[in-house]
Amino acid sequence: MRLALTLLLALTTVPCAAQPHVDVAKSLVADALKDDWGYAFLEGLTTEIGQRLAGTEAEARAAEWAAAKLKSAGFDEVHIESFPMTAWVRGVESGQIVAPAPQHLVLTALGGSVATPEAGIEAEIVLFRSYAVLAAAPPGSLAGKIAVVTQRMLRLEDGAGYGAANPIRRAGPSEAAKRGAVAYLHRSLGTTNHRVAHTGALNYTDEAPRIPAAALANPDADQLERLAARGPVKLRFTLTPTTIEGARSFTVVADIKGRERPDEVVLIGAHLDSWDLGTGAIDDGAGCAIVAAAGKLIAALPQRPRRTLRVVLFGAEEMNYSGPAYASAHADDVPKIVVANESDFGARPIRIVEVPQGAAASDFSRALIDVVTPLGVILGRNTARDAGDDVRPLARAGVPVLALRRSAPDYFDIHHTADDTLDKIVAAELAQNIAVWAAFAYLAADSAVDFRALAAQQR
Amino acid sequence: MRLALTLLLALTTVPCAAQPHVDVAKSLVADALKDDWGYAFLEGLTTEIGQRLAGTEAEARAAEWAAAKLKSAGFDEVHIESFPMTAWVRGVESGQIVAPAPQHLVLTALGGSVATPEAGIEAEIVLFRSYAVLAAAPPGSLAGKIAVVTQRMLRLEDGAGYGAANPIRRAGPSEAAKRGAVAYLHRSLGTTNHRVAHTGALNYTDEAPRIPAAALANPDADQLERLAARGPVKLRFTLTPTTIEGARSFTVVADIKGRERPDEVVLIGAHLDSWDLGTGAIDDGAGCAIVAAAGKLIAALPQRPRRTLRVVLFGAEEMNYSGPAYASAHADDVPKIVVANESDFGARPIRIVEVPQGAAASDFSRALIDVVTPLGVILGRNTARDAGDDVRPLARAGVPVLALRRSAPDYFDIHHTADDTLDKIVAAELAQNIAVWAAFAYLAADSAVDFRALAAQQR
Repeated sequence: MRLALTLLLALTTVPCAAQPHVDVAKSLVADALKDDWGYAFLEGLTTEIGQRLAGTEAEARAAEWAAAKLKSAGFDEVHIESFPMTAWVRGVESGQIVAPAPQHLVLTALGGSVATPEAGIEAEIVLFRSYAVLAAAPPGSLAGKIAVVTQRMLRLEDGAGYGAANPIRRAGPSEAAKRGAVAYLHRSLGTTNHRVAHTGALNYTDEAPRIPAAALANPDADQLERLAARGPVKLRFTLTPTTIEGARSFTVVADIKGRERPDEVVLIGAHLDSWDLGTGAIDDGAGCAIVAAAGKLIAALPQRPRRTLRVVLFGAEEMNYSGPAYASAHADDVPKIVVANESDFGARPIRIVEVPQGAAASDFSRALIDVVTPLGVILGRNTARDAGDDVRPLARAGVPVLALRRSAPDYFDIHHTADDTLDKIVAAELAQNIAVWAAFAYLAADSAVDFRALAAQQR
Repeated sequence: MRLALTLLLALTTVPCAAQPHVDVAKSLVADALKDDWGYAFLEGLTTEIGQRLAGTEAEARAAEWAAAKLKSAGFDEVHIESFPMTAWVRGVESGQIVAPAPQHLVLTALGGSVATPEAGIEAEIVLFRSYAVLAAAPPGSLAGKIAVVTQRMLRLEDGAGYGAANPIRRAGPSEAAKRGAVAYLHRSLGTTNHRVAHTGALNYTDEAPRIPAAALANPDADQLERLAARGPVKLRFTLTPTTIEGARSFTVVADIKGRERPDEVVLIGAHLDSWDLGTGAIDDGAGCAIVAAAGKLIAALPQRPRRTLRVVLFGAEEMNYSGPAYASAHADDVPKIVVANESDFGARPIRIVEVPQGAAASDFSRALIDVVTPLGVILGRNTARDAGDDVRPLARAGVPVLALRRSAPDYFDIHHTADDTLDKIVAAELAQNIAVWAAFAYLAADSAVDFRALAAQQR
């Protein structure tokens, strides 16, 4: 009996082949939870640079700043790449209810919007509580009017309300213009009832005139709903944005060279550009801090992982350039990327790991869940098909993606608004993110798991 | 034994003399909790009028609007009084960090601030984390600088943090100017970390030049603290307010005439003017709705109370005119006012009644506590010495005051900011307020209690 117990004990405690690798990941977690380098990175980025609008001098300074930080953090090779873009720069933005009850309106231009005349646009509104009703309105029905859509975006844990509401902002301006509208306003694609408006890029079509377009703060949309229910409402608003043709954006790339398979790359990214209204703390300074700090912890290990770990801080994500720019510049490298992931949904704690297709039962996934379970993370029911804008073109080109999901019902209270500032970040939550990301990045880089092959076996 | 029990039961259920009066108050509470007239008043005021800046056309429209509502609500006599004032009208307000990290600043002019030059004021800052340090700085030490005070206002249940921080806004501009500053900024006297700035009146002294002054949103004050800790910071800001000499403000007075003692007046008030940034929902549309709705419910009773109930909607409270204007216009009436109270701290539920000095053991107080206990209200440990700005001059002239206190730790998240909009009001909480106010107003108006005499007995 005693012998049997001894044997059993020996069997359960004898390290399996993967144990040292797991122990290293656990030590990374412990290091991450007591290290403040990631928070200091975010504090520095949002303070010393602040807003980092794509294609502007501020974004260029941010790239230099981040490259210097990554160099000092022990990465083996850090460089900046550059690509051309058309920049869009916000000007004056102001709005008023002219009649029946004069009142200041809080609104913000959509990224890419054309300017109004300098004196503004003044017209009666046609208000739609549902975007579908605007989309079904007949041609000419909005002639000379300001179209206003007040449909409300849903607050959901995973942010799915945003995707569903996105056409209101992206397609709404041209849909309104097709029907004769002279300008377009919509309720912010945001969940806060504070008087901050939510910007974001629009997409004009070529089939309609380009009309000025802006987002209203939620209480302002409410006010217009109440007034429109009582009778005609006249508004005036002024936007004076400008565009810069031939601007440039930047991608910062930092590598930790693999000790055995340097040509195989685990790519973790975030985007360095931000909207100009806040200082880009949750979107996406936090993501940059998370992937940079995860890399820094791995760079400090006594031994390099087997594969190369690449941290990429993308430029001009908010203006839709980042993913395509990287994927096209690195088309030859795509086959070498064994797995990719990005962090672009704030810094609330990671709760769910979605592993690539076919990888749920792999040694890699078992090790990762073992390491991150104490951090309050579970294995998701789904496998990752998408990890975000920056790596989407890589995913489409066949790169397996992994996703680390947060529960963040308040993300769209802040995202794309003036409220996106450092005070919205909880340092301990940021540290949990860094711990999970460090564990994932290390385990993926130090393993031999072939995610492409696992996915192929599933098909 | 059976006889004894029957007797006891009879004794405890025999109505005392005050019972019918208490029953009426209880019926008012029941009516208040199911009536939406108060919420509709607030919705109408904040929608059909919106902001009601003192001395402007909007405030005049609000007075006409409110008087019409009160007339239709069954008051016996409604009129508008008027008094002269100097109005102050906000203009453009914008600010930027010029160096080292260009960034938009969210700020708002203090009420009464002089304008900057049209091109703005640009200078280095001197930052004080404590106002006391500025107040102790030597003459000339701020020459040519923008003084910035970032002391934080405390969040406390009863709003006491506001009073303590008030000199930072009221006296700060002149204290900075005395030391040579060319402009003054301070952290908003508000508790939110959203990017909305908190306005409010300043008080220039004659001993210093009048310099432009504005409040920074809390995240902007944080940002300046972080930047100032790293090195010199240069700001630019522009304010273009104007003043209107010989403007007029308005007081709306609505009476329910007492059936027995019409010359004795119970005065309940709130202020109708608001700051211009929001629509004055919590400050003080809510108070207007509460006292108007309480009066409307009492006006609908089959019988008038013994004394006159007077609802007063004061004008220009935010610019410090309301209380003195009313007290000086009605100096002869002061002895007839048996008790006064005002509602000017939002619409979170009433939690504490502070009765006038000497009145804690009166029939009135016992009846009031009996009626409002089921609404979650207790008798406070202190007696009321002050009920607010509008009735303070009456209190100083000897009018007893009663105070209905709320627990409202979030009041200064909203107060004096663009966020003061209807969506911040919880209809059920407003109804609880109206119920408590109706009970108090009715019980005071229908009683013969002499609060002055009770106070005199205590002395």
